[in-house]
Amino acid sequence: MLDHLWSSLDIHFPEMVEIRRFLHMHPEVSFKEVNTARYIEEYYKKLGVEVRSNVGGNGVVATIKGDLPGPTVALRADFDALPIQDEKEVEYKSTVSGVMHACGHDGHTATLLVLAKVLFSNRHLLNGNIVLIHQHAEEYAPGGANSMIKAGCLDGVDVIFGTHLWASEPVGKIQYRVGPFMAAADRFEINILGQGGHGAQPHKTKDAILIGSQVVTNLQQIVSRKVDPIHSAVVTVGSFVAENAFNIIANSATLVGTVRTFDEAVRLQIEQEIEHVVKGTCLMNGAQYNYQFTRGYPAVVNHPVETAFLKNVAEEVPGVYEVEESPLQMGGEDFAYYLQHVKGTFFFTGAMPANKDNAYPHHHPKFDIDEKALLIAAKTLCKATIRYQLDSVNNKPVSIS
Amino acid sequence: MLDHLWSSLDIHFPEMVEIRRFLHMHPEVSFKEVNTARYIEEYYKKLGVEVRSNVGGNGVVATIKGDLPGPTVALRADFDALPIQDEKEVEYKSTVSGVMHACGHDGHTATLLVLAKVLFSNRHLLNGNIVLIHQHAEEYAPGGANSMIKAGCLDGVDVIFGTHLWASEPVGKIQYRVGPFMAAADRFEINILGQGGHGAQPHKTKDAILIGSQVVTNLQQIVSRKVDPIHSAVVTVGSFVAENAFNIIANSATLVGTVRTFDEAVRLQIEQEIEHVVKGTCLMNGAQYNYQFTRGYPAVVNHPVETAFLKNVAEEVPGVYEVEESPLQMGGEDFAYYLQHVKGTFFFTGAMPANKDNAYPHHHPKFDIDEKALLIAAKTLCKATIRYQLDSVNNKPVSIS
Amino acid sequence: MLDHLWSSLDIHFPEMVEIRRFLHMHPEVSFKEVNTARYIEEYYKKLGVEVRSNVGGNGVVATIKGDLPGPTVALRADFDALPIQDEKEVEYKSTVSGVMHACGHDGHTATLLVLAKVLFSNRHLLNGNIVLIHQHAEEYAPGGANSMIKAGCLDGVDVIFGTHLWASEPVGKIQYRVGPFMAAADRFEINILGQGGHGAQPHKTKDAILIGSQVVTNLQQIVSRKVDPIHSAVVTVGSFVAENAFNIIANSATLVGTVRTFDEAVRLQIEQEIEHVVKGTCLMNGAQYNYQFTRGYPAVVNHPVETAFLKNVAEEVPGVYEVEESPLQMGGEDFAYYLQHVKGTFFFTGAMPANKDNAYPHHHPKFDIDEKALLIAAKTLCKATIRYQLDSVNNKPVSIS
Amino acid sequence: MLDHLWSSLDIHFPEMVEIRRFLHMHPEVSFKEVNTARYIEEYYKKLGVEVRSNVGGNGVVATIKGDLPGPTVALRADFDALPIQDEKEVEYKSTVSGVMHACGHDGHTATLLVLAKVLFSNRHLLNGNIVLIHQHAEEYAPGGANSMIKAGCLDGVDVIFGTHLWASEPVGKIQYRVGPFMAAADRFEINILGQGGHGAQPHKTKDAILIGSQVVTNLQQIVSRKVDPIHSAVVTVGSFVAENAFNIIANSATLVGTVRTFDEAVRLQIEQEIEHVVKGTCLMNGAQYNYQFTRGYPAVVNHPVETAFLKNVAEEVPGVYEVEESPLQMGGEDFAYYLQHVKGTFFFTGAMPANKDNAYPHHHPKFDIDEKALLIAAKTLCKATIRYQLDSVNNKPVSIS
Repeated sequence: MLDHLWSSLDIHFPEMVEIRRFLHMHPEVSFKEVNTARYIEEYYKKLGVEVRSNVGGNGVVATIKGDLPGPTVALRADFDALPIQDEKEVEYKSTVSGVMHACGHDGHTATLLVLAKVLFSNRHLLNGNIVLIHQHAEEYAPGGANSMIKAGCLDGVDVIFGTHLWASEPVGKIQYRVGPFMAAADRFEINILGQGGHGAQPHKTKDAILIGSQVVTNLQQIVSRKVDPIHSAVVTVGSFVAENAFNIIANSATLVGTVRTFDEAVRLQIEQEIEHVVKGTCLMNGAQYNYQFTRGYPAVVNHPVETAFLKNVAEEVPGVYEVEESPLQMGGEDFAYYLQHVKGTFFFTGAMPANKDNAYPHHHPKFDIDEKALLIAAKTLCKATIRYQLDSVNNKPVSIS
Repeated sequence: MLDHLWSSLDIHFPEMVEIRRFLHMHPEVSFKEVNTARYIEEYYKKLGVEVRSNVGGNGVVATIKGDLPGPTVALRADFDALPIQDEKEVEYKSTVSGVMHACGHDGHTATLLVLAKVLFSNRHLLNGNIVLIHQHAEEYAPGGANSMIKAGCLDGVDVIFGTHLWASEPVGKIQYRVGPFMAAADRFEINILGQGGHGAQPHKTKDAILIGSQVVTNLQQIVSRKVDPIHSAVVTVGSFVAENAFNIIANSATLVGTVRTFDEAVRLQIEQEIEHVVKGTCLMNGAQYNYQFTRGYPAVVNHPVETAFLKNVAEEVPGVYEVEESPLQMGGEDFAYYLQHVKGTFFFTGAMPANKDNAYPHHHPKFDIDEKALLIAAKTLCKATIRYQLDSVNNKPVSIS
Repeated sequence: MLDHLWSSLDIHFPEMVEIRRFLHMHPEVSFKEVNTARYIEEYYKKLGVEVRSNVGGNGVVATIKGDLPGPTVALRADFDALPIQDEKEVEYKSTVSGVMHACGHDGHTATLLVLAKVLFSNRHLLNGNIVLIHQHAEEYAPGGANSMIKAGCLDGVDVIFGTHLWASEPVGKIQYRVGPFMAAADRFEINILGQGGHGAQPHKTKDAILIGSQVVTNLQQIVSRKVDPIHSAVVTVGSFVAENAFNIIANSATLVGTVRTFDEAVRLQIEQEIEHVVKGTCLMNGAQYNYQFTRGYPAVVNHPVETAFLKNVAEEVPGVYEVEESPLQMGGEDFAYYLQHVKGTFFFTGAMPANKDNAYPHHHPKFDIDEKALLIAAKTLCKATIRYQLDSVNNKPVSIS
Repeated sequence: MLDHLWSSLDIHFPEMVEIRRFLHMHPEVSFKEVNTARYIEEYYKKLGVEVRSNVGGNGVVATIKGDLPGPTVALRADFDALPIQDEKEVEYKSTVSGVMHACGHDGHTATLLVLAKVLFSNRHLLNGNIVLIHQHAEEYAPGGANSMIKAGCLDGVDVIFGTHLWASEPVGKIQYRVGPFMAAADRFEINILGQGGHGAQPHKTKDAILIGSQVVTNLQQIVSRKVDPIHSAVVTVGSFVAENAFNIIANSATLVGTVRTFDEAVRLQIEQEIEHVVKGTCLMNGAQYNYQFTRGYPAVVNHPVETAFLKNVAEEVPGVYEVEESPLQMGGEDFAYYLQHVKGTFFFTGAMPANKDNAYPHHHPKFDIDEKALLIAAKTLCKATIRYQLDSVNNKPVSIS
């Protein structure tokens, strides 16, 4: 059956490319993806697949019901673009000024639509249902995943798989990781409320620039001394603003930064340790402060059994020449939320352009992918789905088979 | 003779007030004082006093030639205003939006003009010449003093006296100080040139905010450890700007600040020590920097003999009830330049409004003075001039007489 | 065959305990283990096993030659004790004042000796040779491993296995880890050479305490900013000494500390970054310094295939109820050196006393183990050896079988 | 009268030298000066001068009663030596191993004894009494001054004068200073109570070395930012001790240091600011601390009128070629206590050896003075005493005469 499905995917590969390029030319930024959502909805309607739109926002959820009993597998693709000006010189360049698919979500969507078409036309063979989650707004916190979950997109789902086309790895490589994979990405803001004055009279002031500088210096100890060294964590102050005339002592200073963690306890610990540093430093100077810690997406924590399963699945997919463990990724992903509700795993599908001169990092104005990666992603997700359902009805534990 | 001159000053006091109020209503900011300069020039021309305009800019210099031989005494008054909106409710309020005499220079000018008139009408009694230096642009570096000196305003001058109407001390008090009196006020700018990057990847960057913060922290040691503790000095970072998104590591940071010193060696030392701190901190981080130290006015350093002379002179001036040593003043004055060329002294004449509710600091939008202080200033300068010339022709050393 | 060997081990378990207790009562510190070495040598001689003593010091190496062809497997046990006073109240308490087996090496030795006896008596069944490496001086750098390797203990060896009885995990648990497992543990010493003087005259000095304090503060940035956050690292200053009268400014300060890393590149990076911090901080202050970085054991980096093999092996060993991945361990082990020369893996065998009141950390004066762990360790090493040789002669890749 | 007294002093100069050299050869450290005290007492007894011994310890107080009415003038000389080994090669070298007059107190005593002899023999001319205060224990806090005052040495005294032979200024120079002259010298001790642990597990500890280092770094801001820059102050940490094995995290650290100030308000402010720094830094780290601030001698604050009087007095003393204002002195003197009770002034009498190769700082093992300074000190004190009494009975205000 798998060979048959893969052949179908091969046959439909041109359509995949076509869809991807169409979406690439018509990008929409997070929370504004109205036309993209309608495009997806129409696609399913034309196929005759049951589809729900406006799920938790612009989200679209389609469901393929297999004729045979079995578990429900969810596959997720995000479809929002970025507020970046496309600087590539290609035929399918963005037609929208200042907006571009600079992260591959166009490819995710094209992959999932065509895979759905192939699976739907073989639904008589499917041992269970398949839920196609087309998610809006991955790029911008609070993201679309959480609201789609609240709107029921995971109802009845047994397992979820998702992939990211990954332009920094070559086509043919699949990267998995058990447990913590992508970081929780949080934001903090510290306002130091000193007491300004004349630059020549420090004794009448509480120098907010000195206090802010001490805070930045002292924050280093959180990662170096407070966090268990076997855990990865980053505390960065990205912005320090106290703008005054040269002969003034600053009344206040604003520090804004980000925290990256992979472990919920460490995340909570750092939120508190930052305040300890700020509070102690301000106390020392008789100054006041405001401190806000705003949580972004949590860490993507892949389930071990499903990840081992996916690793094995990937090893025999046509076009895949290497399946390797990914290092920890400091970037974030709201796929994290799905994994807090159901088992599953998120993995990377290598998508680096063949001509390395065209290889740019994600979010770069010249970012592009090698479209052959879409076919590999589709086949891997296809096999994961079919095999998962089969193993399940065969009472085989989902494991290293 | 002195009693006669003081009586004349008493008689002309209303004119002094009138001039001061006219100038107060028509303020002009530094380097733009064209009408004020013309006003002063015309005053002297009407009197028949020899006058030179456009001296080193908008400066005006008048000379009264005494009939008797003797030393040449210079008296200086500055006449520029400030870019501050006058918020007082008085009849003589500034008529120019956003410009105001918020530092008493209007009073300095009125004092000197009327004093000149009185001295000129008694020139047959004067043992030497008197040079009236009306200086533009004291408020804004590089100031007017230096260019007036270059244009010859001190040629042939033996001694110089100047006073500042001082609103934080009561009318009737004169403050003097031997040696260092008002601070050198310099400016520095440090650009930290790190290497920016993603907030989650500090190891690929050179964090300019951390480096800048370490610089601010380390700069504290200059005053605490490097400068001889018997010298006063201030190093202030007044502005710290590295504005970025929260999840970015700063590429660069700009620190701007001021240094205050009273001693030329300490001034030079601090200029160098700042660079040591910046250089060492950047070396530690593999970062680059730019560093600029821009000298403002030097310290006002009063000559000891002339200051002792002035102290004694002041003690018997009508209206003066206290002559005391001033503490060091962290503010700057370009009177400093005159004292680098000729002997002399600069002193404060108490000018606090009688109603203390109207007492505001210099440069405050509601700043005002008690005009009675003008008469005291005029009499003190008058006595200093006459006595200096007399002592000189009597072969008496200028000393504590 | 395995069942037969395991039964033999069961039968000889009392001997294992007896040997362990004898060694426990007669501990010898690192590099002084003369009697222990002789004890081991005699044991093999009595068995008739070929044995070499004084290998790279007090090391002892025995070789069992299998009758059938196959690969050579090395098993390693260390046998030195610690300069700690035994505070336990047990019959087998140390008889040597101030010396004790507080880390389980007595158990390692007993395990390996009895396992060797069992394997030797079944040598007709063995597909290859077995090298028993009894290593001296694991507790004290530079350790015994390196000199034993230089003395040839790994000659002809194809793979090596070793275990540590681990008292912080319960009996029945085996912990493995692919790749970096135990940290490289290095030592550094920094001497700040300032310029001393009177406590009231900082400007004539270079304050070594301030400089040292800035160094400690700045060292924090190495872990927080310089090391890739996905790598674990620790930089600790454990000793700071600048002892003077209260009214003196310190001439010098001595800082001593440790660095822990798992990656050779990070290790080298930190060695260099420490010097950057010291150099920059001293430059800032015009001070000099000495810096020494002394490498201890490198990180234990387990080979992936052999570790996966060992994990599978362990899963079916009698008495083992859980085989799990170990977290990174910040402690060091000179087993690291063997793994730089041949493939292999090092793992933990849970050995926590059944009565948790008797459970103390390694190196504690009351440290003890549950001796049942010796049997589990022996069976696991036994199975690993037999299976490795069998797989090899069956041309089966050593892998997840 | 003055000329007569000065001639007598000239005649007795050899005795002055003799006494000084005898004392130099028989030094006694602070609080142990039993023989020196007896020597002084005997001297007065032989003269027939009323003398009290054991005043507040080893102090000796003699009183010369003038035949004429007038104010009581006190003159003070200290007589303790230092625990320093004399390394000079002179005939009058210390005969006591490890003890030496390395600060000139031998000269102070010789000066005062001979001056007393001269004054006593002219007591019929004196307008008032003269109290000769021979003070023990100036070198070692809490000093002898306070206990002598409590024992009544200032009872009935109207004014006090004292001088220090000052080897860093040439013979013939007198240095005076109005107001704050010599610093208050206090001691502080900070114990950081963190939580120790293994060097590889910082997250389980509170690193006392890091906290202590942050404290030292942050203490710099007290002088640089908190104290009014027109005031001189020093905060020095002279000792930092946290001695451990290299692989340990420090449980505690001890910092000891000194504070120098000239103003009581600043002194109190710094005592508090140190605690702010320690408290804030410890709070930041969840650590505890102990903090002790122990006051040493207060600042020597000369009374203005008496100092101006002494300045004028000194200007016409034979052998004095320069009378100048002293810079602030960061060293301390318990003469400070006398000035808290009665009016007076303390001044320096230049005593640098003529051969500058023999000029060493005070407290140096080769310290010596030019004995000609004793005569100048005696004449200056003599004149100050006589003139003060005369002015007083003439109803002339003690002032710049």
